Amino acid sequence: MADRIKIVLDEKEIPREWYNIQADMPTPMKPPLHPGTLEPIKAKDLEAIFPMNLIEQEVSRERWIKIPEPVMEKLALWRPSPLYRAVNFEKALGTKCKIYYKNEGVSPAGSHKPNSAIPQAYYNKIAGVKRLTTETGAGQWGCALSMATQMFGLDLKVYMVRISFDQKPFRKIMMETWGAKCVPSPSSDTEVGRTILKEFPDTPGSLGIAISEAIEDAISSKNTKYSLGSVLNFVCLHQTVIGLEAQKQMKIAGDYPDIVIGCVGGGSNFAGIAFPYVCDKIHGKKLRIIGVEPTACPTMTKGPFVYDYGDTSKKTPLLPMHSLGHAFIPAPLHAGGLRYHGLAPLVSQLLQDKLMEATAVSQVECYKYGVLWARTEGFIPAPETTHAIAVAAEEAIKAKEEGKAKNILLCWSGHGLMDLAGYEKYFSGKLTNYHMPDDEIKKSLTNRLIIV
Amino acid sequence: MADRIKIVLDEKEIPREWYNIQADMPTPMKPPLHPGTLEPIKAKDLEAIFPMNLIEQEVSRERWIKIPEPVMEKLALWRPSPLYRAVNFEKALGTKCKIYYKNEGVSPAGSHKPNSAIPQAYYNKIAGVKRLTTETGAGQWGCALSMATQMFGLDLKVYMVRISFDQKPFRKIMMETWGAKCVPSPSSDTEVGRTILKEFPDTPGSLGIAISEAIEDAISSKNTKYSLGSVLNFVCLHQTVIGLEAQKQMKIAGDYPDIVIGCVGGGSNFAGIAFPYVCDKIHGKKLRIIGVEPTACPTMTKGPFVYDYGDTSKKTPLLPMHSLGHAFIPAPLHAGGLRYHGLAPLVSQLLQDKLMEATAVSQVECYKYGVLWARTEGFIPAPETTHAIAVAAEEAIKAKEEGKAKNILLCWSGHGLMDLAGYEKYFSGKLTNYHMPDDEIKKSLTNRLIIV
Repeated sequence: MADRIKIVLDEKEIPREWYNIQADMPTPMKPPLHPGTLEPIKAKDLEAIFPMNLIEQEVSRERWIKIPEPVMEKLALWRPSPLYRAVNFEKALGTKCKIYYKNEGVSPAGSHKPNSAIPQAYYNKIAGVKRLTTETGAGQWGCALSMATQMFGLDLKVYMVRISFDQKPFRKIMMETWGAKCVPSPSSDTEVGRTILKEFPDTPGSLGIAISEAIEDAISSKNTKYSLGSVLNFVCLHQTVIGLEAQKQMKIAGDYPDIVIGCVGGGSNFAGIAFPYVCDKIHGKKLRIIGVEPTACPTMTKGPFVYDYGDTSKKTPLLPMHSLGHAFIPAPLHAGGLRYHGLAPLVSQLLQDKLMEATAVSQVECYKYGVLWARTEGFIPAPETTHAIAVAAEEAIKAKEEGKAKNILLCWSGHGLMDLAGYEKYFSGKLTNYHMPDDEIKKSLTNRLIIV
Repeated sequence: MADRIKIVLDEKEIPREWYNIQADMPTPMKPPLHPGTLEPIKAKDLEAIFPMNLIEQEVSRERWIKIPEPVMEKLALWRPSPLYRAVNFEKALGTKCKIYYKNEGVSPAGSHKPNSAIPQAYYNKIAGVKRLTTETGAGQWGCALSMATQMFGLDLKVYMVRISFDQKPFRKIMMETWGAKCVPSPSSDTEVGRTILKEFPDTPGSLGIAISEAIEDAISSKNTKYSLGSVLNFVCLHQTVIGLEAQKQMKIAGDYPDIVIGCVGGGSNFAGIAFPYVCDKIHGKKLRIIGVEPTACPTMTKGPFVYDYGDTSKKTPLLPMHSLGHAFIPAPLHAGGLRYHGLAPLVSQLLQDKLMEATAVSQVECYKYGVLWARTEGFIPAPETTHAIAVAAEEAIKAKEEGKAKNILLCWSGHGLMDLAGYEKYFSGKLTNYHMPDDEIKKSLTNRLIIV
């Protein structure tokens, strides 16, 4: 075969340990604050919503954390995920750059999300928890956790952001097929949901609202904990299997990336591909690491680094992070997984320390490259994933203009088979861009926020 | 890791040749008949719809046919597909049988169909064809050919059976994302479509009608040929990569199958998994090979072995096959890929020669096992695939009752992410069974059919 386009690792090459970037960060992480006292939170304060084994992971500074055997067994269903070279996409761009992508769409749920759903279900199970609650944006996380809770015999209720619930009707059935319950958020099942529905009956919802509902449900229900698909340290930790595998595969390909790219909502798939490379960078390697967000929800590029709540109703601890304000309701763009006001504290700190860059792209631009990708590489990308693809394309075109040939690695976070309504809108010419005006962001930020 | 659940082969293990069962069949194949003269058809009579290179494959008796390098390169996008052991499904059934499945759902189109779509697009391309037409039932074939024609720079128009078009609205967008055009069939774009719509405006359509439309379009358009996703000898040939890989993987697993199972519409995924094992059987190996069809379209179990047309409007050659009659319109079950009146002549002959068995299962039974599969194995199966799963489960349960432990291998032909409406109906209790009464079949068969 002419070009080697796919690098597959044997099952025994699945990483046996997660990489914890806290062990290597030049600036130590600021502690989360208690939402009542605004004092640094204690581990036991988190016990109302998380089991202690996950809380320990959240605060751990150990560089390597062993992946439990039952988690390894489930990950092996689709891991190691293949690394591809996008030879035909490169040709279409006319670039000499090599574009590699780590295909996380091969999981049964179709995205990288099971990498953390499975360990979270496992740790809750062994802690004696019977039921989980969670939120989901586009539905990737809700589906992943539905599958994972079914695997470990837990019940699950998913609060799905209303706009995505309406745009992607089959996501609910997918979750039900795996045995979970899914309702649109805001819902009438919680106090916070009812309050918001009363004031804004037509709200598209937001991840912040859905998180509030899921937490309220968890706190007020028996044997129930809450599960989150991004943002937290342990979620980023679980996702590092992506980057650890990619490093082995890039070695086999004989290339080291000049640029590593991931889309950013809460930050989990980005953390997954990027953190092992950030470690390289901290230790002297020269490379660029780029997080990509939508212009409609510019958390990294326009949100300040502050202490803010993770949810709308201020139930969560305050986290040190880039934020557009916890009351921010992003425009109803199709990349529902990127509609989050905040950003993982770990990713936020790396951005502060200039160990990574951030950029924002518009929806229509993303679909343009998403369609080109499907037509050259075969796999149809999720709307979120098209953000990473668009920036890879832009970097490759820039390199072409500069007469350079770079190695670009992107996290292909998930397939778009459940998100085809967005493609239909794009083809019909009805897809629009949303740019967040600076004064709206300023308005959103006037809410009680503590500047770091 | 406790049990080895996944066997992945290296890219260089993709078969380099297709296996042609015609070289080994005890009974030579009867020739197709010309629809006008009813005489054995000549190769050049087929040239109006197929390029000569594919016609040569159709009639070849060579045991091994080399896979062209450009086809190999495209297949390598997802092949070799993984072989899994369904350990958790086994546990749920309480059986000691080992159930292996070949996961063809990992292709970008989500099913086994690209195995033939890619070579068909390639052979048409090198024959100078510019545009293809085709039919599709559930949409798996239409999507696969959309991707393949895009890869080789051909235009494509897909006639999609109306009932599936309505049940699976996102299939059309998927095809468009790959650059193809898709219309519901019967359509007003062809003479045959208009005629049928006039008489039966509410018809759910059938594969037979859609084939008639696609052929009419191909014959009456410039530089256009017709492409078929099943039934023909060369389609079965292309699919044998499935069984050839499975044989290598079963050897690594250290087991030989006692039973090989595939669902059967036109017969292509079944041929793919089964033919290399039929070869073993012809040469003395003891094993059972089972084709599974829906009770609503019982071509193998109730249709006689006759000469019949492949399409409704009698445009195709007459093929020696099991058939319910070319005018047969199957009930609107969700497994749209199994709604075909006929059966691949190669599979029909093997059934005649008792080298395989046939069985029929009802829709509700299939979904029951499909849901159990999703909840134990993670991957959500296509409605077609649930037919193979249901019979694997029934065989495993029977073995348990007999105190036996068998090795069962099934072709997991595709995922069901585009077919979730059927699951929704199942959960709501609204899914019904369709059994084809014998007198209706008799009525359908009174149409002009030539008994072999």
